[in-house]
Amino acid sequence: MNNFDFQNPTKIIFGKGQIENLANEIPEQAKVLLLYGGGSIKKNGIYDQVKTALDKVNVIEFGGIPANPEYDTLMEALKVIKTENITYLLAVGGGSVIDGTKFLSSAALYKGDEPWDILTKNIRTEKGMPFGTVLTLPATGSEMNSGAVITRAETKEKFAMGGPGLFPQFSILDPEVVKSIPQRQLVNGLADAFTHVLEQYMTYPIGALLQDRFAESILQTLVEIAPTMLKDEFDYKAASNFMWSCTMALNGLIQKGVPTDWAVHAMGHELTALFGIDHARTLAIITESHYKYNFEAKKEKLAQYGERIWNITEGSIGDKAYTAIEKTTAFFKSLGIDTKLSDYTNDYEGTAEEIAKRFTDRGWLGLGEHQSLSPEKVEEIVKMAY
Amino acid sequence: MNNFDFQNPTKIIFGKGQIENLANEIPEQAKVLLLYGGGSIKKNGIYDQVKTALDKVNVIEFGGIPANPEYDTLMEALKVIKTENITYLLAVGGGSVIDGTKFLSSAALYKGDEPWDILTKNIRTEKGMPFGTVLTLPATGSEMNSGAVITRAETKEKFAMGGPGLFPQFSILDPEVVKSIPQRQLVNGLADAFTHVLEQYMTYPIGALLQDRFAESILQTLVEIAPTMLKDEFDYKAASNFMWSCTMALNGLIQKGVPTDWAVHAMGHELTALFGIDHARTLAIITESHYKYNFEAKKEKLAQYGERIWNITEGSIGDKAYTAIEKTTAFFKSLGIDTKLSDYTNDYEGTAEEIAKRFTDRGWLGLGEHQSLSPEKVEEIVKMAY
Repeated sequence: MNNFDFQNPTKIIFGKGQIENLANEIPEQAKVLLLYGGGSIKKNGIYDQVKTALDKVNVIEFGGIPANPEYDTLMEALKVIKTENITYLLAVGGGSVIDGTKFLSSAALYKGDEPWDILTKNIRTEKGMPFGTVLTLPATGSEMNSGAVITRAETKEKFAMGGPGLFPQFSILDPEVVKSIPQRQLVNGLADAFTHVLEQYMTYPIGALLQDRFAESILQTLVEIAPTMLKDEFDYKAASNFMWSCTMALNGLIQKGVPTDWAVHAMGHELTALFGIDHARTLAIITESHYKYNFEAKKEKLAQYGERIWNITEGSIGDKAYTAIEKTTAFFKSLGIDTKLSDYTNDYEGTAEEIAKRFTDRGWLGLGEHQSLSPEKVEEIVKMAY
Repeated sequence: MNNFDFQNPTKIIFGKGQIENLANEIPEQAKVLLLYGGGSIKKNGIYDQVKTALDKVNVIEFGGIPANPEYDTLMEALKVIKTENITYLLAVGGGSVIDGTKFLSSAALYKGDEPWDILTKNIRTEKGMPFGTVLTLPATGSEMNSGAVITRAETKEKFAMGGPGLFPQFSILDPEVVKSIPQRQLVNGLADAFTHVLEQYMTYPIGALLQDRFAESILQTLVEIAPTMLKDEFDYKAASNFMWSCTMALNGLIQKGVPTDWAVHAMGHELTALFGIDHARTLAIITESHYKYNFEAKKEKLAQYGERIWNITEGSIGDKAYTAIEKTTAFFKSLGIDTKLSDYTNDYEGTAEEIAKRFTDRGWLGLGEHQSLSPEKVEEIVKMAY
C-alpha cells in the first residue's frame, strides 16, 4: 500500500425528502446564486422543491449550463456573481452543473487577471466561494469530490481543475430524482461510475487489500442493480444504491494508497471534444482496447476482477483476465451502450492521430499507472477502438 | 436504505514515515498538551519520533492515561490544560488515549460546573478543543470518529460520549507502529474491528447493498490478514491493511443508511467494568450467545455473511446462518481469544443478573436493532455466555 493523505469534508444528506432540509445548510445571510442546466429540473419538480425549500433565502438564478460545462457560459455566470455580490453558490443538477459551479467557486475568488489560467496553468484552488449541491443525476461523483472538468467550445478542449477548496460544503442526494432521469442518462451514469472504479483499480497489485475490496464492492453493486435500473418501473432500492455507488466511486476513498490509471478518461475526453459523444460512452469505447493493449501490465488485476466480479473460476490468470475484458464489454452492451467509435460516427479516420497530436502538443508523454503510454501508444489504442 | 447524513472531516495521514510530518498539522502558535498512556511509546521509539517532529512546537506532556480511560486521571489532565493555557491536544496512543483526549477536548471548553455531566447527562459536544492523534494501536477506530468511552473506576461504569466537535483534526497512521505491539493487543485489535463491523451489519436486510459489501470488505480483509498478523515477523502489507481496516470499521461510513445493533458492546462493556477483561475479549464472549439468542431476527444477514465471508455454500438459510456463527467463534479462537466468560473468571455466577439490573437502573429497556432486548433478555444472553 502506498502512503496517502485522505480528507473529505463534504456533508452528504441522503434520502427521500431531504431536499426540504436545504435551507438548514445555507448560512442565513447568504446571497445565493442557484445554478442549473437545460431546464429539466423545471419539468421534473425538483426546481419547485428547491424553490420551496429556499423561500426565505435571498436567491438569484442562472440556468442554461450545458452538458460538458462550457467556459463562455460560465463567464456569463461569473459576471452575475460579481455584479450581484453573490456569497454562496448552489448547484442543482448533475456533474456538468456541479463542475461548472466548482469553476465559478474558484473563479469568484481568483486574484489573477484571467480565470482561463485556472484551467490552462493548473492552478490549484485552496479556497473557493462556498457552495452546496442538490444532485439530480448520479454519475460523476462531483457531488463529493474537489475536481471538475471544463470545456472550451472554440478549441474543442477539456481541462481538469481542482483543489481542496472545491469540496461542496454539502450535497443532497435524494434517490427519488432518479425517477425522472431518461434511460439514456441512467445507463450513462452506470457506465461512468463503473469506469471511475476501473480507473482506480485496474492497474497492478500493490497489497491494498481493503481498497481493492471496496472498489469491487461498488462494481458488484452496479452490476447487481443494472438490470433493475433498465426497467421502466422506478425502484427505490436500486436507485438509492445506484446513487450512493456513483458518489463512492469518485469521492477519493478507493484511490487512496493505490496506483491509478485514468488513461481511459484522457482518451475518452477527446472523443467528446471531437464528436460530442456522451462522456460515459467514450469510456465504453476506449476501455476494451486499452485493457487489451495493456494486457500484460494489467492481467493480474484483470484476473482478480474477473474472479470477484464476474465469478470466472476456470483457466489461467491470462484466460481469466481476457474473459474479464469480454465480460466488461458485454456489460456495457447490456446497458445498450455501443463500444466502438464506428458505432457513433463514420468520420473516425484520423481520430487516433489527432488525439496523439493533441497529447504531444500538451506535453502528455506518459499516461497510465506506469506513465508509459506515449502519444504513439495512445494512437494505437484509439485505432483499436475504431 | 434508510435516510442518513454523513460527514467526516478528519484528515488521515497514512503510511511509513508520516510521523515526521506531524508539526505541519499543528497551528504554529499552539500550546500543545501531548497525552499518552502507560509509557510503551517511550520504549518503542514512537515517543522519540513525535518529540523530534515537534522540536519547534510548544509542548507539555501528560502520560499515564490507563486502558479504559479513567475519569479521575483525566481530571488531572484537565487541570493541566487550564493552568497551562493549553490550546491544542495531541493524543499519541491507542483508543484509550484518544478517547481520553476526546473527553478532555470536550471538558476543556465545557461551560457547565461539573464535566462528569458530559457523560451522565449525554451532553453532545458541538465544539471541542482542537486535537490530533498519532495512532499507536489499531483497534477502536477512535482516530477517525467523534465518539469516546470513558470509565469511572469508583462505580465500575463505562459511559459513551460524542458529538460533531470531537472528530480529530488529523490522525497519523503509520503501520510501522504495529511492529512493537504485543501479540495480545494485536489480536484484540483484530477482534475489536471485526466486532465493530458485525454490530453495524448483523441485523436485517434493508436493501443497502453497497453498505453491506463495504462491511463485508472489511471482514474479508481482517480474515485474510489474520494468519499473517499472528506470525512473529512484521509484515507491512498485513499491518497496513489491518490499520486501515480498523479505521474504516468505525469511521461512520458503513453504518450510514442501515440499522445497527451495538448490544454486544453494551453487554461487553459491563464485563470489562466488572472483571477488567480486555474490551475485545468481552465482545468475543458475548457474540455467539447474542447471535444464537437472536437467531430468527438475524438469520438472513447471518446467512449472507456465511456465504460471503466464510464461503458457506451448502444448506438452508438457517443452516448457513448457524454455521456462520460457529465460524465466527472459530475465528476468535484462531486468534487465541477465549469465547466464554468462565474461561476468564471463576466468579461469574450472578453476572447476568447484575448486568440486567444495571441496564434496568439506567433505563436501558430495549437494546439491539429492534430495541427489543429487555434487561430480562440481556440476562439470558449473558448466561448463555458463561
